[in-house]
Amino acid sequence: MTTRLRLSECGLSAGKKARLHRILHKHGLGNGTALFLPYDQGLEHGPRDFFADPIAADPRYIIKLAVEGGFNGIAVQVGLAEKFFWDFAGEVPLVLKLNGKTDIPSDTRALSPLHASVEDAVRLGADAVGYTLYVGSPAQDADFAQYRTVRQDAQRLGMPLIVWAYPRGEAIEHKGGKDSFYAVHYAARTASELGADVVKVNFPHPEKQTDVPSPYTADFSSQEAIDAVVRAANRTMVLISGGSRAGDEAMLGKAQESMAAGATGLIFGRNVWQREHDESLRFVERLREILAKYPAP
Amino acid sequence: MTTRLRLSECGLSAGKKARLHRILHKHGLGNGTALFLPYDQGLEHGPRDFFADPIAADPRYIIKLAVEGGFNGIAVQVGLAEKFFWDFAGEVPLVLKLNGKTDIPSDTRALSPLHASVEDAVRLGADAVGYTLYVGSPAQDADFAQYRTVRQDAQRLGMPLIVWAYPRGEAIEHKGGKDSFYAVHYAARTASELGADVVKVNFPHPEKQTDVPSPYTADFSSQEAIDAVVRAANRTMVLISGGSRAGDEAMLGKAQESMAAGATGLIFGRNVWQREHDESLRFVERLREILAKYPAP
Amino acid sequence: MTTRLRLSECGLSAGKKARLHRILHKHGLGNGTALFLPYDQGLEHGPRDFFADPIAADPRYIIKLAVEGGFNGIAVQVGLAEKFFWDFAGEVPLVLKLNGKTDIPSDTRALSPLHASVEDAVRLGADAVGYTLYVGSPAQDADFAQYRTVRQDAQRLGMPLIVWAYPRGEAIEHKGGKDSFYAVHYAARTASELGADVVKVNFPHPEKQTDVPSPYTADFSSQEAIDAVVRAANRTMVLISGGSRAGDEAMLGKAQESMAAGATGLIFGRNVWQREHDESLRFVERLREILAKYPAP
Amino acid sequence: MTTRLRLSECGLSAGKKARLHRILHKHGLGNGTALFLPYDQGLEHGPRDFFADPIAADPRYIIKLAVEGGFNGIAVQVGLAEKFFWDFAGEVPLVLKLNGKTDIPSDTRALSPLHASVEDAVRLGADAVGYTLYVGSPAQDADFAQYRTVRQDAQRLGMPLIVWAYPRGEAIEHKGGKDSFYAVHYAARTASELGADVVKVNFPHPEKQTDVPSPYTADFSSQEAIDAVVRAANRTMVLISGGSRAGDEAMLGKAQESMAAGATGLIFGRNVWQREHDESLRFVERLREILAKYPAP
Amino acid sequence: MTTRLRLSECGLSAGKKARLHRILHKHGLGNGTALFLPYDQGLEHGPRDFFADPIAADPRYIIKLAVEGGFNGIAVQVGLAEKFFWDFAGEVPLVLKLNGKTDIPSDTRALSPLHASVEDAVRLGADAVGYTLYVGSPAQDADFAQYRTVRQDAQRLGMPLIVWAYPRGEAIEHKGGKDSFYAVHYAARTASELGADVVKVNFPHPEKQTDVPSPYTADFSSQEAIDAVVRAANRTMVLISGGSRAGDEAMLGKAQESMAAGATGLIFGRNVWQREHDESLRFVERLREILAKYPAP
Repeated sequence: MTTRLRLSECGLSAGKKARLHRILHKHGLGNGTALFLPYDQGLEHGPRDFFADPIAADPRYIIKLAVEGGFNGIAVQVGLAEKFFWDFAGEVPLVLKLNGKTDIPSDTRALSPLHASVEDAVRLGADAVGYTLYVGSPAQDADFAQYRTVRQDAQRLGMPLIVWAYPRGEAIEHKGGKDSFYAVHYAARTASELGADVVKVNFPHPEKQTDVPSPYTADFSSQEAIDAVVRAANRTMVLISGGSRAGDEAMLGKAQESMAAGATGLIFGRNVWQREHDESLRFVERLREILAKYPAP
Repeated sequence: MTTRLRLSECGLSAGKKARLHRILHKHGLGNGTALFLPYDQGLEHGPRDFFADPIAADPRYIIKLAVEGGFNGIAVQVGLAEKFFWDFAGEVPLVLKLNGKTDIPSDTRALSPLHASVEDAVRLGADAVGYTLYVGSPAQDADFAQYRTVRQDAQRLGMPLIVWAYPRGEAIEHKGGKDSFYAVHYAARTASELGADVVKVNFPHPEKQTDVPSPYTADFSSQEAIDAVVRAANRTMVLISGGSRAGDEAMLGKAQESMAAGATGLIFGRNVWQREHDESLRFVERLREILAKYPAP
Repeated sequence: MTTRLRLSECGLSAGKKARLHRILHKHGLGNGTALFLPYDQGLEHGPRDFFADPIAADPRYIIKLAVEGGFNGIAVQVGLAEKFFWDFAGEVPLVLKLNGKTDIPSDTRALSPLHASVEDAVRLGADAVGYTLYVGSPAQDADFAQYRTVRQDAQRLGMPLIVWAYPRGEAIEHKGGKDSFYAVHYAARTASELGADVVKVNFPHPEKQTDVPSPYTADFSSQEAIDAVVRAANRTMVLISGGSRAGDEAMLGKAQESMAAGATGLIFGRNVWQREHDESLRFVERLREILAKYPAP
Repeated sequence: MTTRLRLSECGLSAGKKARLHRILHKHGLGNGTALFLPYDQGLEHGPRDFFADPIAADPRYIIKLAVEGGFNGIAVQVGLAEKFFWDFAGEVPLVLKLNGKTDIPSDTRALSPLHASVEDAVRLGADAVGYTLYVGSPAQDADFAQYRTVRQDAQRLGMPLIVWAYPRGEAIEHKGGKDSFYAVHYAARTASELGADVVKVNFPHPEKQTDVPSPYTADFSSQEAIDAVVRAANRTMVLISGGSRAGDEAMLGKAQESMAAGATGLIFGRNVWQREHDESLRFVERLREILAKYPAP
Repeated sequence: MTTRLRLSECGLSAGKKARLHRILHKHGLGNGTALFLPYDQGLEHGPRDFFADPIAADPRYIIKLAVEGGFNGIAVQVGLAEKFFWDFAGEVPLVLKLNGKTDIPSDTRALSPLHASVEDAVRLGADAVGYTLYVGSPAQDADFAQYRTVRQDAQRLGMPLIVWAYPRGEAIEHKGGKDSFYAVHYAARTASELGADVVKVNFPHPEKQTDVPSPYTADFSSQEAIDAVVRAANRTMVLISGGSRAGDEAMLGKAQESMAAGATGLIFGRNVWQREHDESLRFVERLREILAKYPAP
């Protein structure tokens, strides 16, 4: 099992450390763990995600929920940040998502185009930026090129860089799909190799073995898989993504295993806000109970 | 039903607020609603749009019509702005359209190339800029890249950004087409997520359900659809496009439903100027009667 | 007597014409004349100007007064614009003053240093910029150098440039002082020669003849002097400054003579706001009665 | 019939007006009409165009011919301008062609790459620049992007911009070809919408109707077609291209119809210099007789 | 008496509001008041300030003291920030002082030269920048010029700007000196006019009347003077400087009067750290008791 990272051992500049300290120790439980609320589904999937709970279409409702729930940060695209963050500026850390796309065209050559900059994030008072890297996409040339500018700007401006490391594209589909242990393991390492300060991955599925290369065809428990994923990220902190809404006990189980593996925290969106308000907060409370058991050393 | 937005709650900078205040409260009815005259068809479709009413080929005639009809603004490409706006500068707000294209090549990978800048708009005394975003086009990488520069310049210079959010390209053709509720709903949200101050959409057609994803296959009235579109745009003001010329009563019905849904206004071109002069003004008068019923709070 | 200028004959670009049209025809009396409220005394003289009427120290009170009084614009420094203009953005035109100074150091080599840019003005939604040129100052080298950048930026961005043309410095003190016909006449011409769109001057005093050069030692009526000043400015519109508070009838007499001479308008600050609120508006009403008699042709 | 444009009603800046005044009123007939000599065929078609008249391969011969023939300007690529214009600098206006291409690759996705700048034109003492826009080409994204920089530089530097508006590419081939009334009409309008000061088009062929859209399938005389083309260009002056060498009477007929339609002039190359020297001048004389009948008002 | 400002009514951008919210509501008492520790005396006066308490020469000791004492921020020059802030990054807000000087040359033409940038502050994770403006100095030309770049960068990057507004130079020495009510009043207003978000002033001395202009020669209580100073700053928050070490009761009296006048907080350096460690913290506790009585509304 990987030991949880301390901020002081992550090779961070003063600016990155100051901002991550605020996120991890001045918000949420304040114990070095993190619970983020991602809210970019309106662009990534379209507003159909909000049909069941129409109030969730209102960014103000969601940011307020992040404040009420004691989240360590909220991740949104630049348009929502420009129009809604001011009201709550300083009350919950902002993670400005710098790229994104609609899911209308094919994902065969997936690329998430940049539509905002690290300087936008600084201007808006964000404490981190988010970048989606489609690991293994045939469009990785264009992806790495735009990622390079983001990483360099983040370095220059002391802004923590959170990489959404998502295996995607026709090649990964032919090698076990985007959720296999192989794919998630590779994605975590890729983010670390390319200089992410924090990496967001999906929970790995070691049972998805069709067409995956050796040694991922061996038997691994989910705990072994998530342990390996966190180790692969080394000094890059790991956040586990909730993904689309699933059963509560399953989600809490994944959260528990992730934190036991040394992850720094969780980033749960639809599993939180695709419910009625008070029920959302009750689910958040259960997540916080898990995080409380794993303070940073 | 969405409440109509006030300018003061849209998260606007002083420059954007000053310019939109001029458009919405110092022109037209002055009640916070808007009626825009778009005149970019000479580029987008070619001069064939003017054959039935040859006088409509004359930009001076059209800008004068906008002044006479009490429009809140006229949207033109840079060439017409350079040569014709001076005569009426200050009498009607200018919306400088920054990109555009001919309709000669295929729309499979639709992209509207940038041919003017926000600084051009400032220099010409425009009160807003317009950008066509082809939501869902396979060329969205290039689209988002050029859009980013426009959004950042508009933010830096306090210039309101009106996004023509048009679903387009081969993928949307396979998912219900450009006018479906699904497509228009997604387009409105995309503009909001990407930081438009105002979004121009076509009226949604909930009855177009072939190949659209769930839940858009359910039964929705047109009022329910336009309500949802305005809500999806949240703090981004919504303009409803007239599109190609259609029957007057149908157009007025759409206008009525749009304003009832909380839209800020209408942007009607061919339905206005593809008629004889006095008849144009009479039709405008009927649109103004609708707008008069929906003042901003 | 000079004929009043039309906007269309001032050699203006589209952007400058659009913005001046808004100022002169969409605000105030809307008849092509102008009444501006200058409010930079807090910097130029310090807050002692507000002691008699403490409410006048509040920028919000003053901007609201400009709206209530139907002014054509309010001229403030960047700090007050940043913090107070948003509330009234679009309701009264903003003239952003780009330079200014405290009156603590000596005026021997007067120079008003630049502390804001034309781009700041664009960003804030201003309709004009103001620049103080100390005509005849021994520091004119530095003055012209910083003026050059302002004029070029204003030209590039279509922003009207109002020059506060003030004779100042030890040399002018030895040649009749800053209010002589000689000095004001020279100042108006200097602004025109250097490319001002509008020039603000003090009312000339032809009776101040000590040490002034020929032919200013001849007898001129005040009407002859102000006629000559307006003519000297040719296609640059002229605003007459109120200066420090003086008797109402004297001020109204100057205003009357200035408008008769072909001036475009008045810029009165302390004479307006160094009184109780309702009395301010009554005095403004008397100024508007004069302006109403001199519409632009 | 469109009235011929006056320079003063074209919305031109001082610099553009000064340069076009020189071209139209200080050269040629000096009556506001224009006869240009284009000489870019060596790049566009290769030197095979000079085989029949080898002397025409000599740029010095051609520029001298332009001087002798009283042309209003000569249009060449930068290489010939650098090496040959000095000898005659000031004797005949220079139109520097900023882009061009060989005709060796396919025209399916036609694009004329930029190889010189507006600043090159200023440096060389040119009175205008020329840019080839391939209207309707699938490469219009790249075309508009490079055109934008040319238009903005020309605006900034007061340099008249002449657009060679040529329908081209696979899409136009499937819609009636490059010389149809539909294509030429659209091209003229496109140049106007995008900010050309002068547009050069081919003479339209209303009889080419295969696959053209409505209403171009109706019967139009060539006079009606050229009238419509000039009207479509509105305040953009129109030059009619001679194209490849054809019968003299046919060419003169086209010239006559074009001038009657309100075109500003003609731009004839191969029809002029693909003949013996004195015969060239005699043909030019006949063109001038036509121009003499159509002075600008 | 002026009401204490709320952050939401100061005309702040999202970034400035987020950072000031963190300073005022996430540190110190968290009630919207502020207690800052300035530690730039090593440059401004030299290390002689540390002779009495040698431990105070150690930046690490001082930053730790700021953390222990629950300060809302620590203000240091860039060298100390680079070398000492990392250890405590995120635990106490950093105010990066951008200019400074030795006190070795004469203050006749005082100017505090810029030695760091707003971008340095962003990179280091600072939550505000500090700039010393020598109000009334004969060097105000150079001062305003460098200040302009700081204000514009701070605006662009959403960084709060704290202006040390210090009357200084030979002119102010001839008009009552740097601590007079006249001088401090003017300084507070100047910072507001020039766009400071927060202004740091010395406590005004209305009894210093030698050579001060009218009306400052009248009798004012210290409470009346500090009330006027806070009012003069309008939407710019006011911090009162402790200055050189003085008697505790006198200092606490000033603090009390300042907070009663509507100041946002205190910035006390030598009065804090020119004592033994535990005594420092006890004095801080007494300051916090005062601040606790004046929460922001």
